[in-house]
Amino acid sequence: MKAVVYEKPFSVTVRDVDDPRIQHPNDVLVRVTSTAICGSDLHMYEGRTAAEPGIVFGHENLGIVEEAGSGVASLAEGDRVVMPFNVACGFCKNCLAGETGFCLTVNPGFAGGAYGYVAMGPYKGGQAELLRVPFADFNCLKLPPGEQHEADFVLLADIFPTGYHGCELAQVSPGESVAVYGAGPVGLMAAYSALLRGASMVFCVDRVPERLAKAGQIGAIPVDFTEDDPAVQIKRQTKGEGTDKGVDAVGYQAQAHDARHEEPGVVLNALVETVRPTGRLGVPGLYVPSDPGAPDEHAKRGRLLVSIGKMFEKGQKMGTGQCNVKRYNRQLRDLIIAGRAEPSFVVSHELPLDQAPEAYEMFDKRIEGCTKVVLHPGHALAA
Amino acid sequence: MKAVVYEKPFSVTVRDVDDPRIQHPNDVLVRVTSTAICGSDLHMYEGRTAAEPGIVFGHENLGIVEEAGSGVASLAEGDRVVMPFNVACGFCKNCLAGETGFCLTVNPGFAGGAYGYVAMGPYKGGQAELLRVPFADFNCLKLPPGEQHEADFVLLADIFPTGYHGCELAQVSPGESVAVYGAGPVGLMAAYSALLRGASMVFCVDRVPERLAKAGQIGAIPVDFTEDDPAVQIKRQTKGEGTDKGVDAVGYQAQAHDARHEEPGVVLNALVETVRPTGRLGVPGLYVPSDPGAPDEHAKRGRLLVSIGKMFEKGQKMGTGQCNVKRYNRQLRDLIIAGRAEPSFVVSHELPLDQAPEAYEMFDKRIEGCTKVVLHPGHALAA
Amino acid sequence: MKAVVYEKPFSVTVRDVDDPRIQHPNDVLVRVTSTAICGSDLHMYEGRTAAEPGIVFGHENLGIVEEAGSGVASLAEGDRVVMPFNVACGFCKNCLAGETGFCLTVNPGFAGGAYGYVAMGPYKGGQAELLRVPFADFNCLKLPPGEQHEADFVLLADIFPTGYHGCELAQVSPGESVAVYGAGPVGLMAAYSALLRGASMVFCVDRVPERLAKAGQIGAIPVDFTEDDPAVQIKRQTKGEGTDKGVDAVGYQAQAHDARHEEPGVVLNALVETVRPTGRLGVPGLYVPSDPGAPDEHAKRGRLLVSIGKMFEKGQKMGTGQCNVKRYNRQLRDLIIAGRAEPSFVVSHELPLDQAPEAYEMFDKRIEGCTKVVLHPGHALAA
Amino acid sequence: MKAVVYEKPFSVTVRDVDDPRIQHPNDVLVRVTSTAICGSDLHMYEGRTAAEPGIVFGHENLGIVEEAGSGVASLAEGDRVVMPFNVACGFCKNCLAGETGFCLTVNPGFAGGAYGYVAMGPYKGGQAELLRVPFADFNCLKLPPGEQHEADFVLLADIFPTGYHGCELAQVSPGESVAVYGAGPVGLMAAYSALLRGASMVFCVDRVPERLAKAGQIGAIPVDFTEDDPAVQIKRQTKGEGTDKGVDAVGYQAQAHDARHEEPGVVLNALVETVRPTGRLGVPGLYVPSDPGAPDEHAKRGRLLVSIGKMFEKGQKMGTGQCNVKRYNRQLRDLIIAGRAEPSFVVSHELPLDQAPEAYEMFDKRIEGCTKVVLHPGHALAA
Repeated sequence: MKAVVYEKPFSVTVRDVDDPRIQHPNDVLVRVTSTAICGSDLHMYEGRTAAEPGIVFGHENLGIVEEAGSGVASLAEGDRVVMPFNVACGFCKNCLAGETGFCLTVNPGFAGGAYGYVAMGPYKGGQAELLRVPFADFNCLKLPPGEQHEADFVLLADIFPTGYHGCELAQVSPGESVAVYGAGPVGLMAAYSALLRGASMVFCVDRVPERLAKAGQIGAIPVDFTEDDPAVQIKRQTKGEGTDKGVDAVGYQAQAHDARHEEPGVVLNALVETVRPTGRLGVPGLYVPSDPGAPDEHAKRGRLLVSIGKMFEKGQKMGTGQCNVKRYNRQLRDLIIAGRAEPSFVVSHELPLDQAPEAYEMFDKRIEGCTKVVLHPGHALAA
Repeated sequence: MKAVVYEKPFSVTVRDVDDPRIQHPNDVLVRVTSTAICGSDLHMYEGRTAAEPGIVFGHENLGIVEEAGSGVASLAEGDRVVMPFNVACGFCKNCLAGETGFCLTVNPGFAGGAYGYVAMGPYKGGQAELLRVPFADFNCLKLPPGEQHEADFVLLADIFPTGYHGCELAQVSPGESVAVYGAGPVGLMAAYSALLRGASMVFCVDRVPERLAKAGQIGAIPVDFTEDDPAVQIKRQTKGEGTDKGVDAVGYQAQAHDARHEEPGVVLNALVETVRPTGRLGVPGLYVPSDPGAPDEHAKRGRLLVSIGKMFEKGQKMGTGQCNVKRYNRQLRDLIIAGRAEPSFVVSHELPLDQAPEAYEMFDKRIEGCTKVVLHPGHALAA
Repeated sequence: MKAVVYEKPFSVTVRDVDDPRIQHPNDVLVRVTSTAICGSDLHMYEGRTAAEPGIVFGHENLGIVEEAGSGVASLAEGDRVVMPFNVACGFCKNCLAGETGFCLTVNPGFAGGAYGYVAMGPYKGGQAELLRVPFADFNCLKLPPGEQHEADFVLLADIFPTGYHGCELAQVSPGESVAVYGAGPVGLMAAYSALLRGASMVFCVDRVPERLAKAGQIGAIPVDFTEDDPAVQIKRQTKGEGTDKGVDAVGYQAQAHDARHEEPGVVLNALVETVRPTGRLGVPGLYVPSDPGAPDEHAKRGRLLVSIGKMFEKGQKMGTGQCNVKRYNRQLRDLIIAGRAEPSFVVSHELPLDQAPEAYEMFDKRIEGCTKVVLHPGHALAA
Repeated sequence: MKAVVYEKPFSVTVRDVDDPRIQHPNDVLVRVTSTAICGSDLHMYEGRTAAEPGIVFGHENLGIVEEAGSGVASLAEGDRVVMPFNVACGFCKNCLAGETGFCLTVNPGFAGGAYGYVAMGPYKGGQAELLRVPFADFNCLKLPPGEQHEADFVLLADIFPTGYHGCELAQVSPGESVAVYGAGPVGLMAAYSALLRGASMVFCVDRVPERLAKAGQIGAIPVDFTEDDPAVQIKRQTKGEGTDKGVDAVGYQAQAHDARHEEPGVVLNALVETVRPTGRLGVPGLYVPSDPGAPDEHAKRGRLLVSIGKMFEKGQKMGTGQCNVKRYNRQLRDLIIAGRAEPSFVVSHELPLDQAPEAYEMFDKRIEGCTKVVLHPGHALAA
């Protein structure tokens, strides 16, 4: 089958690889119809990880069940399904607690697995024609048959739940004000989720005009951090108080306020400043324990200067970590089906799988207003 | 009346000061019968704060209502009461949310007030014969009449709820394992609270033999951090996994593992290492936004190097801030009355108020196994 | 001053009564600008309670502070405020737990107080020119100055929070389906709140065409219970499963499915049937321990036949009781201010206080599509 | 193999039946070492259900894995395991929400399955030498190897979690007072769980002297309902207030206060009376939608007269339903391993499987102080 294969920094290719097959009674094979490129794919693409050439990318996958193992109980050939980017077993201590992003079974020696991602276990990516899904009864979410909402549903694999997760970590509740740092795909999904949850005011901090415009379109209040300290701007609009809650949808590759260099702790500390005493911070934005490209020795080991004194004085609480997609994907699917959520507003491009090399470049360089790309293998386009 | 007055670093005196009086219809005056010295009093005593000479110390206060203002509805002369160290109004947004440690009314311009503490508002301390209590209906907790449980009840003003708060921030629940860093008064109360909440294993990390012994006596597992990396020791006893939850009862004046110098972030980072993926950290131990005595420029501004990369990878959550005593003091009182909690095991000394100077010295230098001192004004001793 | 006074069944009058005055340091007097008639006022109006002639009605009150007692800390003359229908002290055990509808202080011997309501304490109603508000710092919610949103804000006194409370008792969360029984003012507010909280599908069961139409306008799905068993109708639209959650916004005066007689348990049992296994029922609709007009001896003592066997088999949970308005009114106010909620869509009539007799009759008989009436004293109309 | 087989009312026999075998890749076979008789087995034994002759009883099972299907990932021959009485899939909507007692997969057309129980699916009971466990990775809880704590661990299958579930439904938290109705095996486990969770006072209501004595031994306060109205007795000991929380561990076969006849709603209504306003009721005691032996027509259809008016006035909340064992069994196991819980105090008899007929009779008639029986197949006794 054809798949998107990593070659070297800033280069992927689409080439033939071995078809996956059922390896375990609980596996299914899925014929991929939509697979999105994620901002976290770019970490590998840019060569800022330990990803080796040959890895098949893709952890945001949707498709049709092609074959089901003998142990599979709830799925049959022809079922349309979307898979969380996390691979999880469903029965370990963490999965039972709903912490499926930290499964103790699927990636021995580590808490958490994923498709097509360096160090996240032996699971091939889905930017391909076929995908093997282990523990399929647990990892597949059924969708209504047909092709409706394809671009909405594929976002259930990662960014819609991940944005929502930021709000859940911050416990955003009706009537509250929220500051979301970052108006990239995850930041926009966080702002959108905050509004779905009934927030009264949602600020969205970024510097890219198109992103800020999109934030405004969904009802958030755009804040351009290059104009003035964003915490100051937000306090000005909240009677000097700051917001009730905050979401960091940026992570360690944050830009300093001058937008000229990275300053890994800048967003976290801006959130501490922006959120009012007793507030909560949700941090779905990625921080890593090892970053060879970091600006200093501490940051290389994942240690950042955090305003912990101020955080304590304000009695803030903080939740971190990658999203447990399975905790939210069914409910978010139901909002899409009911016509009450339409997250595909972030998708700027839908392209054939064959054009993955161009798509990666466009997304990486943010050219042509590229905010999010969904790829479709040839068979899907034919259909 | 007589009161403990701060004179200069390492010096307090007991001398006559003006009697407090009812200033507002919602005030009461309390004749103090027990008032404890807190570890946080030592910050001021040691001259490591901006406390000016003349301040009356004391925020852990218990006594008898002597006079009630015309607006007071639930209290009468003769009622035995204990007051949270926090002064709170009961009707601001934070008080309504149970965040009484962050009251927006009592200390204008800041979230939170307290008795006898620098920068915490105009409220005189209770290491004295009389104490003025504002918003008295809200700030007084009634106790059974008489003198029973005096040393238990006085701990309801601060350290018992504060230790419990650490467990609440970490959401310690039955069957879980917990690592408590620090076996001082608050650490011991946190370990004790974890056991009251049904924890299965509670580790208590310190280096002082008497404290570790006390931890052992209440059913916790002592861990001497001078013997080996405490995270390693604890993982060894939890099948390599680490604990479900962790409490930082140390704060920014943490000792490095060599126990020879301060290393402000060491406990926080040890907790990140000790607690397993998806775990929660409760941080009642004090961190400050400004510490003139800190070892480096960042720490002076309350910025510490935190293993945020590892914390994110593990998907941990963290709650910080001073205790909202009112959230817990009634329930903990009821455990004392029912004979199911007896926190006074931490009290090593009960002394006359007149001996406050010796008491401060003893507590500060930890001589004679001094773990916690309760002072009694002369009238209380006479009774 | 002028006030709406109960004379006898089906008769109120507007006449002069003594002006209220400050009786306690924590009181304020409020000059009423808007005061709504509540469905629960009709219980008294119809003579189905023990209300004595002479009682001043009105528990949904908004106005301007005219005078503040000497103990009041946060309010000043001229502040625009809305009061929860519950009178509460702010410091008893229940108030501290946020259960302000069950205050143990304000109505001795009973848990809970209210303005202008039989057996709810000595508090005069606000369908008058002036209102005395006890424990004013706690019981007043400040509003932006001016006259904006007057009809929205007055609903913060009762029905908007009460509808929201139904959703909170049922723990309605994003993506869920909800069945609301009753499309009267509270039912519509419950459906509206469910949508604000992110529900995916909200069914609204009633038989009055105008009400069902209103439900449809806000995005709910109307279900006419006279057409077919509503549980059957709803299951048909939820793949046979039933809804995740349910709200009873009807209470004990429920109409049987034939709409010809009262059947006090019919809605509760319909909810048990409608909601799927593991679901939750929120019951803000009133049930009473004593109803002289009930159809049988058991119902007269508040005992109804409940499908407890089915409820247990389905593992359902149920929350009951009158709304703790203070838990929600600030957040809901902020949604109104932000333009994200506009509950006044339920208000059909705004009338001068003088026309209270006509207003009661119209509301009681539901003539002229009367769904909700707001009264304005003369001074307010003049302004 | 040998198994306990139901013959007719009041008669079981131990006879040879076909060995179970692996039917699905996710099955395991367990060689049973301990299997307890449950109070709910007596419903079938007494002929008060639709159970047909030939059914193999037993849903409280512990043993050693003998064979594992090809899909099983986490278990191997020789593992010592205990199984929840609920059979659950681990991936349906309810299982994902932790509501494993209401699995939508294992018993088509009904929410919930169990071993050896009428209408709970095709799963044979474990009062036998071997047991087939479906979805084994999900349904088996691993135990430390060996034979330690055998009588404690077998209670993890049902009654210890079920008692704990009562406290969870009532949200029993530290410092609270709790009334548990029923001091049978589940009632005692509920009282024991309340104490483990830090309750300050736990009342236990029954009339059997041995049971009340046992309640007293674990630290609960026995209340004999034949002496006086239990609500009155409990209010007398709680300053007239009633308890914070309540647990119904009796269910529909409740005895009237005269202890001479069944009165199915008596305990539920006593709880409404006993628990204070705003309190919560946990109802793990069984209520059924159909009871042919009920005293009246309504009760036969599972409709009981419930004091819903009083419940509403008090603003109480109620949680019902059978226990989701998997939510609690790991944590409770860890308390047993740590030596902090020893629920086997309720076990009065351990007998060979062969003596099941005598055991059922003894337990049913409560002769020889029989409170709980654990059976051991011959091979276990030999070992």
